[in-house]
Amino acid sequence: MQHKRLIFVTNDDGYASAGFAAAVEVARGMGDVIAVAPLTPQSGRSQAITLTETLMLEKMRSEEGLEIYTLTGTPTDCVKVAFDHMLKGRRVDMVVSGINHGSNSAINVLYSGTMGAAIEGSFYGIPSIGLSLTDHSPEADFSAAKDISRRIIAAVFDAAPSLDTPFCLNVNIPALPHEHIRGIRLCRQCRGIWREEFRPTAAPDGRISFAMSGAYTNYEPDAEDTDEWALANGYVSVVPIQVDMTSYGHRPALERILKHCAEA
Amino acid sequence: MQHKRLIFVTNDDGYASAGFAAAVEVARGMGDVIAVAPLTPQSGRSQAITLTETLMLEKMRSEEGLEIYTLTGTPTDCVKVAFDHMLKGRRVDMVVSGINHGSNSAINVLYSGTMGAAIEGSFYGIPSIGLSLTDHSPEADFSAAKDISRRIIAAVFDAAPSLDTPFCLNVNIPALPHEHIRGIRLCRQCRGIWREEFRPTAAPDGRISFAMSGAYTNYEPDAEDTDEWALANGYVSVVPIQVDMTSYGHRPALERILKHCAEA
Repeated sequence: MQHKRLIFVTNDDGYASAGFAAAVEVARGMGDVIAVAPLTPQSGRSQAITLTETLMLEKMRSEEGLEIYTLTGTPTDCVKVAFDHMLKGRRVDMVVSGINHGSNSAINVLYSGTMGAAIEGSFYGIPSIGLSLTDHSPEADFSAAKDISRRIIAAVFDAAPSLDTPFCLNVNIPALPHEHIRGIRLCRQCRGIWREEFRPTAAPDGRISFAMSGAYTNYEPDAEDTDEWALANGYVSVVPIQVDMTSYGHRPALERILKHCAEA
Repeated sequence: MQHKRLIFVTNDDGYASAGFAAAVEVARGMGDVIAVAPLTPQSGRSQAITLTETLMLEKMRSEEGLEIYTLTGTPTDCVKVAFDHMLKGRRVDMVVSGINHGSNSAINVLYSGTMGAAIEGSFYGIPSIGLSLTDHSPEADFSAAKDISRRIIAAVFDAAPSLDTPFCLNVNIPALPHEHIRGIRLCRQCRGIWREEFRPTAAPDGRISFAMSGAYTNYEPDAEDTDEWALANGYVSVVPIQVDMTSYGHRPALERILKHCAEA
């Protein structure tokens, strides 16, 4: 008897978001689904974990082949509660995180709750895919994104037995009608940074309040192998993700610095 | 006239922590200091940013060469508010984040609010150092850690003109008396993962609450070039940090997968 696939779904925009519903719909057509979504929006939560509060888990929906829960925590908390508590000992075939409202290309991978959860999923030795649509609107149209997500998930399923783990993809889909999407490109993370604008408001007690809004600076706008270039030119970007943060290129400089330390 | 150094200090255990006071003390002996600490403890906040709430900034202390503020946000928010609002146009010579109560070695670099802030600091082209002591206790003894931090900061200052940016260090200091610390080692990030234990409590309304507590599994306990090995053997570990998450080694597998996608 063929093994029926089990797909774990999570998200950072929360249980009520259209993108979470889109991811559940995609996954449901490809296997059984267990989903744990943050109860509230968790955009920008990175790979944060909750150490000082208890987490509340609640079952929201249960039917043949589908269970959906909410958790009062971060996207990474959702993965940890699922794999270290709910699913202990069960074989899971894929982690899908998304579909995010807004791009997680370039340096956004570091700030993204969607990608935090996908990276966490990959730590369990399971192929993990973060999916994002470059449209922040709550009413974003996910129809092309759902179709593209299905194709990428299916291709990863086919390849899964031969993949080196941890295996994690950062998939970003341009907010274009399907017929205007030019293809799917293997990319690298573009270099660039955000600079924020803080417009301060003085409170009567002397404290100052801010809301953050920023602009992205692309350090290499002409580099055709980056995710930013792909998205700007109508392609879906796919970046494989690793988690060794060691900067091996800095080792010679560090050897000199530490020699200096030892002599001081 | 010699330029007087300006050091920015932040932290993830918050304004009231002994580790923050230790970092301010270290920095103060080496230049002028502007510090913005999270108002509340932010351990495990990774590189999270606050997108949906306003941030409140409050001046706590101001004297010759020292200003200390609190911010109702994450460690990364502290860096962004400092560099994109408070310090705009001023030359800053170093970002110091810490001294953290507890290790940020190995995969902890991804979950750590201390390292999130240090990484964010490096995005401003400024040498950034995350400092951690392997002792979670609020009453941890920072005396050896302060001395070692001073030596590392001084050595980075001396090397700063020749360093490729972004430049960020993950420094972990074993909780040992100074005379038992065997030296400072250049390391790479050890491979390994956390597995959590969730002890569930059922609430009367059917929801389940959890508190997270975990154990680290070291995938390569015998690898002498890792930060985990260094700390376990009485050394300070120094890992240079980069932020390109692209897994270049996965590219051949991805090329096959995406070819499959295109043909489907």
